[in-house]
Amino acid sequence: MADLVIGADLGGTSSRLTVATTAGDRLVTVEGGGGNPTTHGVERAAEELACSARRALADFDPGEVRAVVIGVAGRATLDDEQARLAFVRALATSDIAINPDFVGDAEVAFCSATPEPDGAVLLAGTGAMAVRIRDRSVAATSDGLGWLLGDEGSAFWLGREAVRASIAAICGTGPPTALTGAVSESLLDGPPPVPVHRHRSALIRAANGRPPIALATLAPLVTRAETEGDVVAGALCDAAAERLAEMLAGVREAGEATPLVVVGSVVRDRGGPVGRRLRALIAGRFAGDVLAAEDGLVGAAWLAVRSLWPGESLTEVHTRLRR
Amino acid sequence: MADLVIGADLGGTSSRLTVATTAGDRLVTVEGGGGNPTTHGVERAAEELACSARRALADFDPGEVRAVVIGVAGRATLDDEQARLAFVRALATSDIAINPDFVGDAEVAFCSATPEPDGAVLLAGTGAMAVRIRDRSVAATSDGLGWLLGDEGSAFWLGREAVRASIAAICGTGPPTALTGAVSESLLDGPPPVPVHRHRSALIRAANGRPPIALATLAPLVTRAETEGDVVAGALCDAAAERLAEMLAGVREAGEATPLVVVGSVVRDRGGPVGRRLRALIAGRFAGDVLAAEDGLVGAAWLAVRSLWPGESLTEVHTRLRR
Repeated sequence: MADLVIGADLGGTSSRLTVATTAGDRLVTVEGGGGNPTTHGVERAAEELACSARRALADFDPGEVRAVVIGVAGRATLDDEQARLAFVRALATSDIAINPDFVGDAEVAFCSATPEPDGAVLLAGTGAMAVRIRDRSVAATSDGLGWLLGDEGSAFWLGREAVRASIAAICGTGPPTALTGAVSESLLDGPPPVPVHRHRSALIRAANGRPPIALATLAPLVTRAETEGDVVAGALCDAAAERLAEMLAGVREAGEATPLVVVGSVVRDRGGPVGRRLRALIAGRFAGDVLAAEDGLVGAAWLAVRSLWPGESLTEVHTRLRR
Repeated sequence: MADLVIGADLGGTSSRLTVATTAGDRLVTVEGGGGNPTTHGVERAAEELACSARRALADFDPGEVRAVVIGVAGRATLDDEQARLAFVRALATSDIAINPDFVGDAEVAFCSATPEPDGAVLLAGTGAMAVRIRDRSVAATSDGLGWLLGDEGSAFWLGREAVRASIAAICGTGPPTALTGAVSESLLDGPPPVPVHRHRSALIRAANGRPPIALATLAPLVTRAETEGDVVAGALCDAAAERLAEMLAGVREAGEATPLVVVGSVVRDRGGPVGRRLRALIAGRFAGDVLAAEDGLVGAAWLAVRSLWPGESLTEVHTRLRR
């Protein structure tokens, strides 16, 4: 017999769920498909979560689960009572009779990296936003507007800039770059058509012929080209890091020395083309430690434990969950 | 008995077609619905054109038509033999047995404003691009990448910036602006929800719940707010004019004094918020007269006449067509 908690992080392309003891020992972690209710629909996201919970609890008694915290992108989802009920019903099919708490992806990411109550978190994966955290909740948001309106410095943004730079190089309005070949190979079926204006048209058509968000899949071409010394790709990484640092500045108070948490494929790796540049900019402009979080899983599980003992600091539980 | 030509300008939201004599007398002009093959599909665009031609030729003998020039956005359409054949077949149903010439929207717009062979044209309506014209053909293009990849300074871009500025004002990350009220009224059903983060979410959802290009319909909110003294709207008009001037710089050679033609809802009006700013920037940076074209109709008809007498200057025909 043990008291258990469930922490989950519902992402657009993959979801993770962990079962842990209230002492912070992680017993099992499972990965599922994309389970974000905004992108996949509430019913499907709830069913995906219940499915992951069943797999994770195969060797445990669902009746021992005391708290469930679900990290999910987008405040809108948290505001919708119908969405909550769909998750409650889905969990009930896995014999979990607990009302889950929904927490934003920024909060669970922040709490994954640190047990401190205040700070800031920068999320830069497919999308991008910076959030001021006060008492483990969102106090202010910068960008995070989605690909259509913002997300500058995100993987979507890097991918779009890669296409723009490729076209500029083709048309002679920008410098030559290795991105032209890489982007053309990725977007076009077969070799690029000639002359130049057909190549240009083919790239525009191809980019517009897929869901816009698919431009995010081109971001790794930029980081690869940068690693191989491409100057244009390097300039795009500079620009992305600069935009992300500005995003952080929008949620950072003067002289603040609280932790800065970075999360997401674009910035997580401290040695990566954007992660390295961003850390250099942060070191020059902000105080406070820079911590990286893999995702929001630890934070979700820790917040689940905290919900059972709201007055406690539970830093040891946090340390244990991070192992 | 007269020798006739047809000029047409196929736009995204409306199309125009004129029947003129080869001497330059316009006999009849008709407007039809959106007939752009890129946005509406080739078959529908061809049928729309044939329908307009039938209406325009109701009192004339289709057998007297000697040449047809169709102005259309996007080089891609011009390169597709299947698309050409669809138009030939559609015209044949109106008893016009002429192979039409397809000409880009930039060329017909340029030729609408001037009979000169060389210069530049800036198109800024729903989309935005600048084109260097040599011998009445496109010699270089700047932007014109479509809303997903570019079109900076276009109506789409202004509309998107209006939403961004509204959200920034709501969240306190940007200055207050009259755009917040105007954009919220346009995008939301009913009064904006409270608190702030719900208002923000509602605007993001509404903008993403329509076809992205529909953001262009918000551009008039920016120009109206500017006229009423809104500082944020004024700054957006500054930024749009600056981007359009940069676009022009990309196709303008040093010291060039050829005509600069502007066309499209964003820039056509010399007294409009962006048109005025753009003309001031042009006066400071470029030589050459700034001419405005309403659309490409005159240019299409004139190019149709020119195709019959390729060696002639035909400036008088041009003057007559512009009446």
